[in-house]
Amino acid sequence: MAAPKLNIVPFVSVDSMMKLVLAVGIERFLTELAGYVEEDFRRWEAFDKTPRVASHSHDGVIELMPTSDGTLYGFKYVNGHPKNMRQGLQTVTAFGMLADVGSGYPMLLTEMTILTALRTAATSVVAAKYLAPRGARTMALIGNGAQSEFQATAFKALLGIERIRLYDIDRSASEKVVRNLAGLGLETTICASAEQAVEGAEIITTVTADKQYATILTDNMVGAGVHINAVGGDCPGKTELHRDILLRSDIFVEYPPQTRIEGEIQQLAPDHPVTELWQVMTGKAEGRRGPKQITLFDSVGFATEDFSALRYVRDKLASTGLYEELDLLADPDEPRDLFGMLLRAAKS
Amino acid sequence: MAAPKLNIVPFVSVDSMMKLVLAVGIERFLTELAGYVEEDFRRWEAFDKTPRVASHSHDGVIELMPTSDGTLYGFKYVNGHPKNMRQGLQTVTAFGMLADVGSGYPMLLTEMTILTALRTAATSVVAAKYLAPRGARTMALIGNGAQSEFQATAFKALLGIERIRLYDIDRSASEKVVRNLAGLGLETTICASAEQAVEGAEIITTVTADKQYATILTDNMVGAGVHINAVGGDCPGKTELHRDILLRSDIFVEYPPQTRIEGEIQQLAPDHPVTELWQVMTGKAEGRRGPKQITLFDSVGFATEDFSALRYVRDKLASTGLYEELDLLADPDEPRDLFGMLLRAAKS
Repeated sequence: MAAPKLNIVPFVSVDSMMKLVLAVGIERFLTELAGYVEEDFRRWEAFDKTPRVASHSHDGVIELMPTSDGTLYGFKYVNGHPKNMRQGLQTVTAFGMLADVGSGYPMLLTEMTILTALRTAATSVVAAKYLAPRGARTMALIGNGAQSEFQATAFKALLGIERIRLYDIDRSASEKVVRNLAGLGLETTICASAEQAVEGAEIITTVTADKQYATILTDNMVGAGVHINAVGGDCPGKTELHRDILLRSDIFVEYPPQTRIEGEIQQLAPDHPVTELWQVMTGKAEGRRGPKQITLFDSVGFATEDFSALRYVRDKLASTGLYEELDLLADPDEPRDLFGMLLRAAKS
Repeated sequence: MAAPKLNIVPFVSVDSMMKLVLAVGIERFLTELAGYVEEDFRRWEAFDKTPRVASHSHDGVIELMPTSDGTLYGFKYVNGHPKNMRQGLQTVTAFGMLADVGSGYPMLLTEMTILTALRTAATSVVAAKYLAPRGARTMALIGNGAQSEFQATAFKALLGIERIRLYDIDRSASEKVVRNLAGLGLETTICASAEQAVEGAEIITTVTADKQYATILTDNMVGAGVHINAVGGDCPGKTELHRDILLRSDIFVEYPPQTRIEGEIQQLAPDHPVTELWQVMTGKAEGRRGPKQITLFDSVGFATEDFSALRYVRDKLASTGLYEELDLLADPDEPRDLFGMLLRAAKS
């Protein structure tokens, strides 16, 4: 980028984000992004962490997810409105910002609807690297909405998954996934039930969207040695797994104060033992111990993951040029002369 | 506005905001905005309120200020970095967003550096309408930085202030105010000290920027009957008034849980009595009782004021057309087909 203009913030629109992902390549984008996510989990203690700030309403939730590592500050705006889909709108939309802690000045504004799907998939696969059984080649993918292909692609690119067994209550959603993944090197099978989907799968990913307690998986469906990547249960009152599964699993979470409120473990006692993912990555805690263990990544999405994604996109700007310049910040010639700048605008 | 395109969010840049303020007229803009601010204070109980979410660092603070009335959701990103001025940057920069609670979709993104100065001044004058002595014509304005002319103009437009007595530790800041206000119908006087500035003033506005405990006003400087509009003390460790002044004043605040942390009253016991401004406006509490009372508006800035400003700007878009269209939201033809939209972008 050229010498900075103080009023300008680089902006990555939806169109630019799509071009960026395609220019880098989806699999490489997911792989590099997973590297940033893992790097930030490994320096977990450097982050200023807080549960997301949620505004709940009848139809959904609007959230702000801030975090900082002391040098950079990032936040994401994200909504979750399950009813939106019926009106032709996205269930989840998001945008985010990266800022300089030293000056407080924003450095990047970007769409994050697409980016959130990518970072969620990248995080899932980073967790699975430590938790899934070795040599896993088959993944059940239950819930075939907007995020599912991103999950499938990330697990192929980073973990070597070859076969995806799809199930959705709406078969057309599974058909959409089959179409979208055609030619990308994954074998896809549409299943008639969740029971059928989990057959032979070493990894079970649940990514459904209803905002209510649901039981996507019952206890009898989960065999020994499986890794469950539970992505869809991510707000109070929204879960996907039967409680008995949780009691048989070793549970791994991002940030316990948030997961206790939003994750599958809201069904358990507030002191039920869980392991923090960053501790597994840094060797402070054990991940998978053996072939019979059931591991559960109770993923709700945490601000550091968005921070990693914002960092990654920021680092891609200079080489790709895929951004616009947004006139977002007032920049008077003399900092104290905001009013004078306004008056002089009348003459320009 | 024309039929909505689902991917588009109207964006008001700094340039558009300046054009908007000038098109409406600064005094009329402040007057109309004050109407929105007062309207929202009067329906205070309808708002989802929370103290701002602050990320403090050595050099400053970055804050998110969200609120919602159940129909609309608004938030502001704002930083406060006193050292910025020495590097030619703004101490405070801000932007904000208004969203639809029903869908979670953003409806407006706007610069708020200029808008914050306007809404702070509008809020000050709304409070003063209820608290300042009747017939006040002279205001002391201590601290002559970026916000001071907005305060002066708002007090002229809405309260009939005719004379402004200026003081700043840097005389060139006061000279800037005199230049900027020339021809706008206010008599301005630069004073050699804060003591001199308050002589004959019925209203004292303090709007200094240092992030530290300071004593802009000492007890002997504040005579009976004065209204103090304390704008500058707005974060932990930053105050402007000597504690003894607070003990002689009736103190009015926006949102006590936030003001106890950030306002002048952080110098007092946590149960020191204060009156909420909205209760004065709705007749639930008394404002000014008589000519000898010292009233203090301990202003720290609250999310509802930004919400009012966002609503006001939103309502001005259609008639002025002073906005751009930002491609911020992913809008696949089929909501669940985010991945397919990405794949198809390769062919477009």
